[in-house]
Amino acid sequence: RVNGQRLWDSLMQMAKHGETPKGGVCRLALTDVDKAGRDLFVAWCEQAGLSITIDKIGNIFARRPGKNNDLAPVIMGSHLDSQPTGGKFDGVYGVLAGLEVIRSLNDMNYQTEAPVEVAVWTNEEGSRFAPAMVASGVFAGVFDLDYGLSRADLDGKTMGEELARIGYAGTADVGKRKVGAYFEAHIEQGPILEAENKTVGVVTDAQGQRWYEITFTGQEAHAGPTPMPRRKDALLGAARVVAEVNRIGLKYQPYACATVGLMQIHPNSRNVIPGRVFFTVDFRHPDDAILAAMDAELREATAKIAAEIGLENDFTQIWYYAPIKFDETCVAAVRKGVEDLGYSHRDMVAGAGHDACYLSQVAPTSMVFIPCIDGISHNEIEMATPEWVEAGCNVLLQAVVAKANT
Amino acid sequence: RVNGQRLWDSLMQMAKHGETPKGGVCRLALTDVDKAGRDLFVAWCEQAGLSITIDKIGNIFARRPGKNNDLAPVIMGSHLDSQPTGGKFDGVYGVLAGLEVIRSLNDMNYQTEAPVEVAVWTNEEGSRFAPAMVASGVFAGVFDLDYGLSRADLDGKTMGEELARIGYAGTADVGKRKVGAYFEAHIEQGPILEAENKTVGVVTDAQGQRWYEITFTGQEAHAGPTPMPRRKDALLGAARVVAEVNRIGLKYQPYACATVGLMQIHPNSRNVIPGRVFFTVDFRHPDDAILAAMDAELREATAKIAAEIGLENDFTQIWYYAPIKFDETCVAAVRKGVEDLGYSHRDMVAGAGHDACYLSQVAPTSMVFIPCIDGISHNEIEMATPEWVEAGCNVLLQAVVAKANT
Ligand SMILES: NC(=O)NCCC(=O)O
Ligand SMILES: NC(=O)NCCC(=O)O
Repeated sequence: RVNGQRLWDSLMQMAKHGETPKGGVCRLALTDVDKAGRDLFVAWCEQAGLSITIDKIGNIFARRPGKNNDLAPVIMGSHLDSQPTGGKFDGVYGVLAGLEVIRSLNDMNYQTEAPVEVAVWTNEEGSRFAPAMVASGVFAGVFDLDYGLSRADLDGKTMGEELARIGYAGTADVGKRKVGAYFEAHIEQGPILEAENKTVGVVTDAQGQRWYEITFTGQEAHAGPTPMPRRKDALLGAARVVAEVNRIGLKYQPYACATVGLMQIHPNSRNVIPGRVFFTVDFRHPDDAILAAMDAELREATAKIAAEIGLENDFTQIWYYAPIKFDETCVAAVRKGVEDLGYSHRDMVAGAGHDACYLSQVAPTSMVFIPCIDGISHNEIEMATPEWVEAGCNVLLQAVVAKANT
Repeated sequence: RVNGQRLWDSLMQMAKHGETPKGGVCRLALTDVDKAGRDLFVAWCEQAGLSITIDKIGNIFARRPGKNNDLAPVIMGSHLDSQPTGGKFDGVYGVLAGLEVIRSLNDMNYQTEAPVEVAVWTNEEGSRFAPAMVASGVFAGVFDLDYGLSRADLDGKTMGEELARIGYAGTADVGKRKVGAYFEAHIEQGPILEAENKTVGVVTDAQGQRWYEITFTGQEAHAGPTPMPRRKDALLGAARVVAEVNRIGLKYQPYACATVGLMQIHPNSRNVIPGRVFFTVDFRHPDDAILAAMDAELREATAKIAAEIGLENDFTQIWYYAPIKFDETCVAAVRKGVEDLGYSHRDMVAGAGHDACYLSQVAPTSMVFIPCIDGISHNEIEMATPEWVEAGCNVLLQAVVAKANT
């Protein structure tokens, strides 16, 4: 059993880096506060006797040797970056639950057969730099290293520049590390576990995703003397797409999710008809065929709206991955852990993307979910109870030790 | 007759302050480039022998004495500030046409009965600081001085602070200056004159305006695991209002204009359901009763949309003025000038707001319009021909001299 209090205290200490007035966290990838969070994690790992490796895209690996160090390590992990108005658990929980598993193994003086590691993946959120899960994607060979390092934020700063600036551009080649198995603990970020009063989710699958960037270009003109029929209002076009995105999401219920989260209006002046709008679309579904149908509807609706208003339509799908099936042996290890510990549980499909989705391409992988209050995440009020936090970590310990010993 | 080449050269020199790569101007109110533009204007006025007065809200008055200096001056003017992606003529034309009238009077050694002045009104555009025409509004007693000085930009900087910073917080009381008559030359900013092949617009009326600020507050949540039915998406609400604003504008054709020009999305992250959106609405109509009907429809639609999605709706009308009828004697002076000079012309209703709208509350007022290419304004490509520019200024000269001598 892990030390739940120690894990909770570590979560609360980490949450000081980037804490917001409303009790949340703003620790955007590769900012100074992300560096401070990484430094704290590395210091804790060194105190726990772990050796640190940093790869060229800033992923951190903290290693506890096993009896047989030729065996591929069992890796636990997640991310330390957050949304602009994020919470204290999203990502951090998987990292610090991994550290707590290792601290507990140290306390018990327990040696696993294979080595055990904790990984921190760079820029999982995809908020400052799109898409999400960039660095675990490079690790898994889904993206080139150059692609990863060249991701730019809205000010044009790249991941490569920012890694160098904060001192986390490591030297290890990305993806060359062996992975015996990968386990990621995470808050559910949705309402199901709490609604059904379950403590643990055994994650069997993850939804697929498609992300888009759309730029509509019309013509800036004066909001007063420009007659309605002469207008090429880029914001009117974008607003209609927002409504269509919502319609598509509602059409493919249950399960479909469809969101416009980001929009930039140019020149953004009260009495100027907007000449250019940049916005994003986020589609998700557990069935790849439906995700493709949503894609087709979006393309058609967007083209039609642009043509009606007379807008240039620059439409790019910038990210796609198909729904994921996690490894049966890893899922079974998690399920056995929950059952042995006697926690209430259910099987689940992950609604969010996780580094585990990409790790599953190169290693047997699964995930452990715990509830979060009201299913709220990507919000400063994100919250989990100490009991849930401890329970998930106990399950992680069981699954990891089981895998590391086989 | 004025010197059209000199006026054109002055316009092009002024356009260097804040020039943009696309040939336009970004000279937002009370920025360093606005200061540079003001400094250039003041230097030109001093070269022309004019005396300068600056009032507490930064309005500049440059005075040429008449034969009888007890008479109230005839004032010409407009503004030097621009939109973020503005043009070389909007506002500047009225100021520099006024200066050219005075330079021509100097050339001819012509003394008017009453003094003649050129005025530069602070923050006419309403882009950096809302609403528009703030300082002419304070001059006319429509707004308090404190209201004017406390207008804040989106970063919270106030007009009072920024006036002091750039050295244009003058000492003269605002609105205490006598005004015998006020004439403002301006580009039309719409397509009518060019379409009908007319050189000058005799402006008899101006549309009324209503501006709104709306903040929708929902709940930030994760774009992946948050089921569609649980969402309180503030951007979906704002997008529906954009569509309603457009519908209302189209319903009250001809004449109605309805625009959402500014929108700020919070937290503006691709995979976060927007929790808060701030946006503005700009309504215009020459008939006050229809403007009121548009207002009622907007309020109803906004409340309904917010209720449907479960959003908090913070709705404020921040600006309103009723349609304006300009002074018949001033309109007649402009019409006589155009006819004597033999330019093609027509009567017009101003589609934009102008400082003349507020001046008309305290002095006999009218305006002279010239065409602009494709009717485009509030755009970097805004353009007028040297012939139009000269023609409007000649009309201004005739009208001003006629008024100053009666
Ligand atoms: N877990 C999580 O919040 N991931 C961010 C990427 C996504 O939007 O799915
Ligand atoms: N003339 C002009 O562009 N005025 C700005 C105020 C308005 O939007 O009407």
